Amino acid sequence: MAGDVSTVTAPAPVNAFERLLDPRGIAIVGASADPARPGAQTVRTLKELGYEGGVYPVNPRYTELDGYRCLPSLAAIEGACDVAVIALPAAQVPASIGHCAERGIRYAVVLGGGFRESGEAGAALEAAMLSTARARGVRIIGPNCLGFVNVGARAYAAWGSLTRPPRMQPGPVSAVLQSASFGMGIVIQCTAAGLGFRYVVTSGNEADITAPELIDAFAGDPGTRVILAYLEGVRDGRAFMAAARRALAAGKPVIVIKAGNTEQGRRAAESHTANLAGSYDAYRAAFRQCGVVEVDDVHEAADAALCFAGGRLPGGRRVAAIGGSGGAAASFSDNAERHELAMPPFSGETLEVLRATLPKLASLGNPVDYTAGYPRAGEGLDFRRAFAAVIGDPDIDQMAVMFAAAGPGQLVHGGEVLAEVARASPKPIVAYSSMNEALAPEGMARLRAAGIPVLASPRRVATAMARLADYAAARRRARVPERPAPGAGALLPPLPPGAATLNEHESKRLVAAAGIPVTRDRLLPLEPDARECAGLVFPLALKIVSPAIAHKSDIGCVRLNIADARELARAATEIVARARAAVPGARLDGLLASEMVCDAMEAIVGVVNDTAFGPVVALGLGGVFAETLRDVTFRVAPFGVDTAREMMGELRGRALLEAPRGRPALDAEALAEALARISALAWALCDRLAELDVNPLLVRPRGKGVVAADALAVLR
Amino acid sequence: MAGDVSTVTAPAPVNAFERLLDPRGIAIVGASADPARPGAQTVRTLKELGYEGGVYPVNPRYTELDGYRCLPSLAAIEGACDVAVIALPAAQVPASIGHCAERGIRYAVVLGGGFRESGEAGAALEAAMLSTARARGVRIIGPNCLGFVNVGARAYAAWGSLTRPPRMQPGPVSAVLQSASFGMGIVIQCTAAGLGFRYVVTSGNEADITAPELIDAFAGDPGTRVILAYLEGVRDGRAFMAAARRALAAGKPVIVIKAGNTEQGRRAAESHTANLAGSYDAYRAAFRQCGVVEVDDVHEAADAALCFAGGRLPGGRRVAAIGGSGGAAASFSDNAERHELAMPPFSGETLEVLRATLPKLASLGNPVDYTAGYPRAGEGLDFRRAFAAVIGDPDIDQMAVMFAAAGPGQLVHGGEVLAEVARASPKPIVAYSSMNEALAPEGMARLRAAGIPVLASPRRVATAMARLADYAAARRRARVPERPAPGAGALLPPLPPGAATLNEHESKRLVAAAGIPVTRDRLLPLEPDARECAGLVFPLALKIVSPAIAHKSDIGCVRLNIADARELARAATEIVARARAAVPGARLDGLLASEMVCDAMEAIVGVVNDTAFGPVVALGLGGVFAETLRDVTFRVAPFGVDTAREMMGELRGRALLEAPRGRPALDAEALAEALARISALAWALCDRLAELDVNPLLVRPRGKGVVAADALAVLR
Repeated sequence: MAGDVSTVTAPAPVNAFERLLDPRGIAIVGASADPARPGAQTVRTLKELGYEGGVYPVNPRYTELDGYRCLPSLAAIEGACDVAVIALPAAQVPASIGHCAERGIRYAVVLGGGFRESGEAGAALEAAMLSTARARGVRIIGPNCLGFVNVGARAYAAWGSLTRPPRMQPGPVSAVLQSASFGMGIVIQCTAAGLGFRYVVTSGNEADITAPELIDAFAGDPGTRVILAYLEGVRDGRAFMAAARRALAAGKPVIVIKAGNTEQGRRAAESHTANLAGSYDAYRAAFRQCGVVEVDDVHEAADAALCFAGGRLPGGRRVAAIGGSGGAAASFSDNAERHELAMPPFSGETLEVLRATLPKLASLGNPVDYTAGYPRAGEGLDFRRAFAAVIGDPDIDQMAVMFAAAGPGQLVHGGEVLAEVARASPKPIVAYSSMNEALAPEGMARLRAAGIPVLASPRRVATAMARLADYAAARRRARVPERPAPGAGALLPPLPPGAATLNEHESKRLVAAAGIPVTRDRLLPLEPDARECAGLVFPLALKIVSPAIAHKSDIGCVRLNIADARELARAATEIVARARAAVPGARLDGLLASEMVCDAMEAIVGVVNDTAFGPVVALGLGGVFAETLRDVTFRVAPFGVDTAREMMGELRGRALLEAPRGRPALDAEALAEALARISALAWALCDRLAELDVNPLLVRPRGKGVVAADALAVLR
Repeated sequence: MAGDVSTVTAPAPVNAFERLLDPRGIAIVGASADPARPGAQTVRTLKELGYEGGVYPVNPRYTELDGYRCLPSLAAIEGACDVAVIALPAAQVPASIGHCAERGIRYAVVLGGGFRESGEAGAALEAAMLSTARARGVRIIGPNCLGFVNVGARAYAAWGSLTRPPRMQPGPVSAVLQSASFGMGIVIQCTAAGLGFRYVVTSGNEADITAPELIDAFAGDPGTRVILAYLEGVRDGRAFMAAARRALAAGKPVIVIKAGNTEQGRRAAESHTANLAGSYDAYRAAFRQCGVVEVDDVHEAADAALCFAGGRLPGGRRVAAIGGSGGAAASFSDNAERHELAMPPFSGETLEVLRATLPKLASLGNPVDYTAGYPRAGEGLDFRRAFAAVIGDPDIDQMAVMFAAAGPGQLVHGGEVLAEVARASPKPIVAYSSMNEALAPEGMARLRAAGIPVLASPRRVATAMARLADYAAARRRARVPERPAPGAGALLPPLPPGAATLNEHESKRLVAAAGIPVTRDRLLPLEPDARECAGLVFPLALKIVSPAIAHKSDIGCVRLNIADARELARAATEIVARARAAVPGARLDGLLASEMVCDAMEAIVGVVNDTAFGPVVALGLGGVFAETLRDVTFRVAPFGVDTAREMMGELRGRALLEAPRGRPALDAEALAEALARISALAWALCDRLAELDVNPLLVRPRGKGVVAADALAVLR
């Protein structure tokens, strides 16, 4: 939009791995005449598909393979050669990497397994390989992968399913696949839908070159418009986020299908490529923060790639549906609502056009049902004008066309008029047809030629449209600078060295230093006398203070609503006795007398230090209920108040903030501010803070702010 | 299982609509030579496909159509004729139904629209048509539909997409589709997967014959093994449940895809076939109670139909996965976990076989990853034994085989050995391959011939296996009688006639009569004196009693924790003032002094009288939090304690019952009992009770039961 201040600079279009992905020549070390061998498959595919760069099979046992001269060693290569495909047993790979360096080959693709994924001996081989590569300036794809393909250049540095039919067509999608054989399912479904690829890279164990690096390269590649990734995990979450943000700024959607997200899934992925790191909560947070389009299944990845390849983004979340199947309209509408896509009524002008152009039994709301047997020409009908009116309606951001079971002839007519409409409008159009290529070739070809994605169900259309809208919103957000999180760190209290659990009093000092109000507390001795209790304001809460006791209330070491000094004395004796009984020998640092805050709702704010992403902040509303009902959301720290507000808006329990029954609305702004401050604190202390729980963070009525009633920090 | 007491009797295999669905002759009233006309399409299809019954086109304007003699009227038909397809404008249909009756034709299929779905005039025509039909003993499919097909008999009483390619094959699936053009999407995907159909009926407006009646007929039809339904709604929810239960008893899964479930979806469906009734919550409850397999999308319906057509059911929820793609294994495992399918470790014996038969780099946990490039014969490998060991493991109930991107040759070998394994085991086997018919024809054919479903992603395999497990569990449950809900009704208090809102005191009397403990309450006058307050136990709660004030606490008319008589007097004055201010002129029946229960968790139990299903009971745990976080579950009344326990187990908040932090477990059994009792009450009063809210129902520690602290009944 004109006038927007773009704060995320689009990258200069430079593909950092151009020499790797668009090589002038490919050597195949371990080339073979046995078609079951990976090296044989690479050579044969390069031959069959007519790769125009140099092809250099290397194997002293042959002089010729598939019509290419077979060389005794890499040293014998005479032409330009950028990539060596290494199809050797694992034990021979480290030496081979050295030979690459000697010949000036800067990229190696290591196909075979038997490395880190297979146990200790393999891990040692992988380390040896990597240390040679680092020392000698060779970059490696793999090991334990199917290689990569540059489809346009017909450069197949690959084997196995990557080299088998269906033949990929050139196109705008670049993919990085942490499981090649699973990723091929996506490639096959995209290919069936007529979508083409630029690069397909299977990254295997990622001993050297990682998925984030490849995504970054794709973001900088002028020939890539859509990025697809199958991920089990990334070791450097921040690098992934940087690459994803670069792609977002460049307007190249990153579509991710992520596995290894559950206990069972992690176990399965662990024995696979060993890329697992980080919790799924952290990934989901990072995906949201960087506009990554997460999809749940293979067909959804293909649907999304197809829709994003069209390059059209909606201006908002308002959609229209028009078609000949009431059932399809109902299914679409259900799923549009689930994705928070609105279906507003049409303008009077639009309705007038629809009335003048559609069959008389048509139902003219949004969705429009023009009844079965259409679209067709004649009878005074004009589907071109009808479609144009719907997509032209100023209250509509994108249009779904439900051809449903419309027959081949109807699809030809529909495809023709819809193509015209698409040419005249910049808004996204997504179609649903139960027909396929074989049943309605001409109609499908027309729609495809017009760049209109045709998906296989109304639900899938709604899902894809929601992803377009989500991504467009992420693009818009990325243009506006987020108010930075208020600084933390300057005034932090001194921390003890090494791993330690801070007690409530110390933990609250940390929280307070970040600018979060904490309850007025007084640390009392275990047997407080009258003087020590002088000036306390009742009612108050009394709790044990001990680094050895994290869940005080579970063992009866918290007493609320203490009304006076006498009750306090009784409670103190009781609490200390219970603490001693529950954790014999625990160091007891005293008793904490805390003010009672009675007008608030409990929030839980937590920080964990994720193995892949570093500090991640969690938010839940409603205390124990949020935990039990698993209504918690996450963001990677640090972030500003806009992101904090988004977190709050994602919770099912967000209504608790707005106007709990019969009570005033709560101070949501103060909560957002506190979240951002805690994220800044977590980031400032990312080397030290293993965990922080502010539980409860009490959210008071609007204007009264928040107050941390308890906190627990664990240092590492 | 031998020894089981089967309490749900399997139906005698009788298809109530046999004469309709397997007709001896079909008349086409309004047959035509214009191929755009429905009547023309019916006649042509019957001709082209070679239907062997009598075909009787009726239209005085022709003497012959497609080689059939065209008759001037139904009266001129000489042979046996069971069905008349009526392809006339709506206005002529009622008379035509009369002609059917005169000729002794007992079934009519009314294709055209222009009836109830199109407004008032159409509704009048539909009523006229129906009254003729009822009076003369004619049953009707439609109007506003595409007719029906008996695939095996090639009886196409149909037009439009139902008569177009792809050609359905005969098979075990019978379908009722409330939207034909959307439903055809399911038919097309099933057909592409090689699955055949017995009957496909599009039911349109269901003026007479309804989806539940058809499901009931399919349940009784010996040729139907799987029932598929696309539903927008059923008007008689109990009839649907009876039909679904009959199908469950007969072992015929009912797979339902339901639309019109959201605000937007309902709006879309309303202008369609006008079948909408009932809330989606009630449908979901009914589906659970009757073992209906609900699916979310077209491909899921096809996947489920394919898997159920195999006729194998698992004994439990323990699954194994084996395949050549670690990524596919991870994706499968994630989704298995989400569906609560366990992946237990294999027995030592199984592991031994796997070690002896699989490639040496294979990973032998569950899931098994035998690495890419397999299955293949030779090299000392034996995939037949490996598969057989996995499915034969006593801890495994069904097996997923992840062929993933295995090539055509691997699939041929895999298909061959897996077919052998399937023959020797009764457990379900579901495969995933990214190949399709065109890419790997021989392998796919072998798998198909062996009855092994091949689905298009690991996630879809996990989902389908979960549906098999869910359905098997529903079958097992149906065999065991549920402990009936304790009777209610005998001791119910007298109810005022007509629509009325009962006040808290009256509502609680109703609840107490059903056998639910209520708080000890005393109804006080608006200005209670000392005598009236004598003997009250403090602390207590005080609330206004007025049929005009439903949400007392919202307007400050509830006071908790009143400590003594003086405070009570003050609170009384305040509450009455607030009530008068908030609802001027409201009848105030008094003040209710209620005992305080402090050791409990709040549950919400509600009853609504659904337009389709009648009384439906809702349960939420955690009071306002359950409402706000939308953690609520539903069942159609009446039901027993087993069903009540299931409801509790479905809630995310179920952990609140088990062991809330630092507090004793709650009396879950008493809650289950109370739910069943309330369901019995709701059923006993189904003609009178519009709504009942028991909120909160306080769940006390184990052994102490539950107590209703507030209730609101609305009569109709």
